[in-house]
Amino acid sequence: MQPTRTSAVLETGRDWLDHVARNSPARLALMVFASIIAVFTVLLSLPAATASGERAPFVDALFTATSAVCVTGLVTVDTASYWSTFGQAVILVGIKIGGLGVMTLASILGLAVSRRIGLTQRMLAASETKTTRLGEVGSLIRAVVVASLVIEGALTVVLVPRFLALGEPVGTSLWHGLFMALSIFNNAGFVIIDGGLLPHVGDWWLGLPIVVGTAVGAIGFPVILDVARSLRDRRRRPPWTRWNLHTKLTLSTYGLLMVASVVAIGAFEWTNPNTFGPLDLDEKVLASLVQGTNPRSSGLATVDTGEMREATWFVTDALMFVGGGSASTAGGIKVTTFAVLLLAIVAEARGDRDVEAFGRRIGSSTVRLAVSVAFLGATLVGVATLALLTLTEYNLDVVLFEVISAFATVGLSTGITPHLPDAGKYVLSALMFAGRTGTMTLAAALAIRERRRVIRMPNERPVIG
Amino acid sequence: MQPTRTSAVLETGRDWLDHVARNSPARLALMVFASIIAVFTVLLSLPAATASGERAPFVDALFTATSAVCVTGLVTVDTASYWSTFGQAVILVGIKIGGLGVMTLASILGLAVSRRIGLTQRMLAASETKTTRLGEVGSLIRAVVVASLVIEGALTVVLVPRFLALGEPVGTSLWHGLFMALSIFNNAGFVIIDGGLLPHVGDWWLGLPIVVGTAVGAIGFPVILDVARSLRDRRRRPPWTRWNLHTKLTLSTYGLLMVASVVAIGAFEWTNPNTFGPLDLDEKVLASLVQGTNPRSSGLATVDTGEMREATWFVTDALMFVGGGSASTAGGIKVTTFAVLLLAIVAEARGDRDVEAFGRRIGSSTVRLAVSVAFLGATLVGVATLALLTLTEYNLDVVLFEVISAFATVGLSTGITPHLPDAGKYVLSALMFAGRTGTMTLAAALAIRERRRVIRMPNERPVIG
Ligand SMILES: [K+]
Ligand SMILES: [K+]
Repeated sequence: MQPTRTSAVLETGRDWLDHVARNSPARLALMVFASIIAVFTVLLSLPAATASGERAPFVDALFTATSAVCVTGLVTVDTASYWSTFGQAVILVGIKIGGLGVMTLASILGLAVSRRIGLTQRMLAASETKTTRLGEVGSLIRAVVVASLVIEGALTVVLVPRFLALGEPVGTSLWHGLFMALSIFNNAGFVIIDGGLLPHVGDWWLGLPIVVGTAVGAIGFPVILDVARSLRDRRRRPPWTRWNLHTKLTLSTYGLLMVASVVAIGAFEWTNPNTFGPLDLDEKVLASLVQGTNPRSSGLATVDTGEMREATWFVTDALMFVGGGSASTAGGIKVTTFAVLLLAIVAEARGDRDVEAFGRRIGSSTVRLAVSVAFLGATLVGVATLALLTLTEYNLDVVLFEVISAFATVGLSTGITPHLPDAGKYVLSALMFAGRTGTMTLAAALAIRERRRVIRMPNERPVIG
Repeated sequence: MQPTRTSAVLETGRDWLDHVARNSPARLALMVFASIIAVFTVLLSLPAATASGERAPFVDALFTATSAVCVTGLVTVDTASYWSTFGQAVILVGIKIGGLGVMTLASILGLAVSRRIGLTQRMLAASETKTTRLGEVGSLIRAVVVASLVIEGALTVVLVPRFLALGEPVGTSLWHGLFMALSIFNNAGFVIIDGGLLPHVGDWWLGLPIVVGTAVGAIGFPVILDVARSLRDRRRRPPWTRWNLHTKLTLSTYGLLMVASVVAIGAFEWTNPNTFGPLDLDEKVLASLVQGTNPRSSGLATVDTGEMREATWFVTDALMFVGGGSASTAGGIKVTTFAVLLLAIVAEARGDRDVEAFGRRIGSSTVRLAVSVAFLGATLVGVATLALLTLTEYNLDVVLFEVISAFATVGLSTGITPHLPDAGKYVLSALMFAGRTGTMTLAAALAIRERRRVIRMPNERPVIG
């Protein structure tokens, strides 16, 4: 009887998951993330989790758990020295679950949105009723898990020899390689190498996997899936002609932002005596690539962010706020949100009725969705900045940087996070949670409710600008 | 023959004005503002314009002329002591012309927009051809001139006795009263009282006219006209039922922002020992009212802005960016732009197809226009901030404040403007010009061009957030 009973329980669990995913996917995402963070806070509160064997203060356990599960990388204590190997393993599992969770949940939300939106069409073609019911969600989760394991495995294979070559013992090299591989692909921003990444600023063997691995993680799962699908399709036309609008929009915007940030940050820091100044040319190029990748949103700095120029901080603020791809391990308002806003402006400037990109029309409700997400992001950042400005004596430059880094789950720091009062640490924890779950749940929650009214109000035009 | 010839010249001038106003109203606005600034730069470059009798440096003459004509009030030199009475008179005329200019041009632009948009309807009703041709523009300019003179006159009548009561001679009192009346209504932010407004922080006789007068100027001419029209209409229903959407939207948003800023700035500064701290309760209330009015966008501070808290600066940044009413002497992206963005988000949150307010529908092109204006504003502020951060050693907090103050033609200053290098002063001059003319010309230029395409692209939905 046991197997039947297990499968009955599984079936009930699946039913429940499917029910919630269908009916309140946004609430599901929030519940799941909050529960996972609670579990990891408890784990990090165990005395065994710290190197000293003393129980970590609640605020630090909560902050670190949130930072790990939200794949941010901001820390109130030094990851390499404060936590024990058990504690670091807990953080690693938190990163893995958080990274998987956000990709899965965002993908499920996307599915729910496209389902709800396709409702009218499907009601017309009333044939398919229960066939795709659980299959879709299940195969989606499987694809996410497989893809992330493959990429993380590849990164581990590249990184372990590097740590061996640096003279670390085999066990440590394996551990460091695995930890860094997961931290990189999940854009987690955690580092357990003693002394951090700063001594490795000129190390291409470490730097290139960071640049490529974080970019793949930050591009977003729908894009990875679509590109893989287009490559499997062996027709004559080149694969990119078969990409969907989301993939084209994400890749083009992501590419432009990548180039812009590498050039801008490289140019601003080139002669800074405290960052790029003392480096050789090839080290400067690598440092520009790594630091230019960071804002979207790996946060694995190889120079001291706190020593960067005010102008670099400001540019980084803007880049972090935009962030990476949808349903990725990156945060921010997402590159498609930014692209849709830009396209709306271009359409307005050209006097077009429709917002268009790559031969496709983008509906006005999508534009409003983008406005909503950007506005929610700006409001969260604004309120948190105001809170930290009143709670501390720090200036706007460092406060805004730390706040956007938390909101966009980047993990770059000018160095103030460990010195914040507890209230400030709670503000940043809440912001990491809101930033990680907020934009995607908001977008999903808004997209799936669309009321139709029979009576339309008369049109009137206020003066703008 | 002379009268006929004059009227022929006038007629030609009117034809030209009407032609430009119809066909490229945005270019007209830019040309007019640039020419006026050039003339006033020359006037302020005369040796007679300075108190010392020495020729002012070009950068200071240009900056002051731009600040006056763009009714900003940021200064690189002290208005009361650096300029002669002739120089101050030049500034006053610059304020008057700039204030009139912006209200007139914005109103003409609004007319052009509504004309162009109403084109289809009017082509259907082909009767009215040339009747409203010049009449509209002419009567609009007349109404702007009359209304501003009446309000400025009233303010002068209130303020002159105040200066007499302070013991100033009759001539000085008249001069100070007239200058401050124009500076207040035009939200110019210039002060020629020796020692500035700081000694008058508890003076209700000076403070209340500032609060009320700047608010009337910042609400915008279309609103003043609409409210006046509704009051003349002597039907049973209360006047506000006859207001148009623009008036309702402006007044409600303006009112909410006013209350929010008075409460927020009052609360943050209440105990600051360098600003409100030493004041009595009634002085604190007045100071809250005046400083809460400043961001929209009078800039007549009665406490030292440079001594305010970081949190107050940040809140003020946001409020200044939004600014005042359209076609007013206030700057910023305008309260209607902000309101339309908020309404679009509310519509999205409620799942409505249309953006609605006060029983009226706001078209999706208006929403895109609001996005464009807000985005242009943010871009201008971002680029100028980046420029000043690289040109100087100042921190983000004071640079951002000064930049938004210039963009939104507010004139509040943390004190860095006089100490900027010349390049920085040119950046702020350009920003005052762009802020003053940019949002309204952009809005007009975009609104009047609307292409219709026969072929619509297939709809596709990228993932947002
Ligand atoms: K991160
Ligand atoms: K002003």
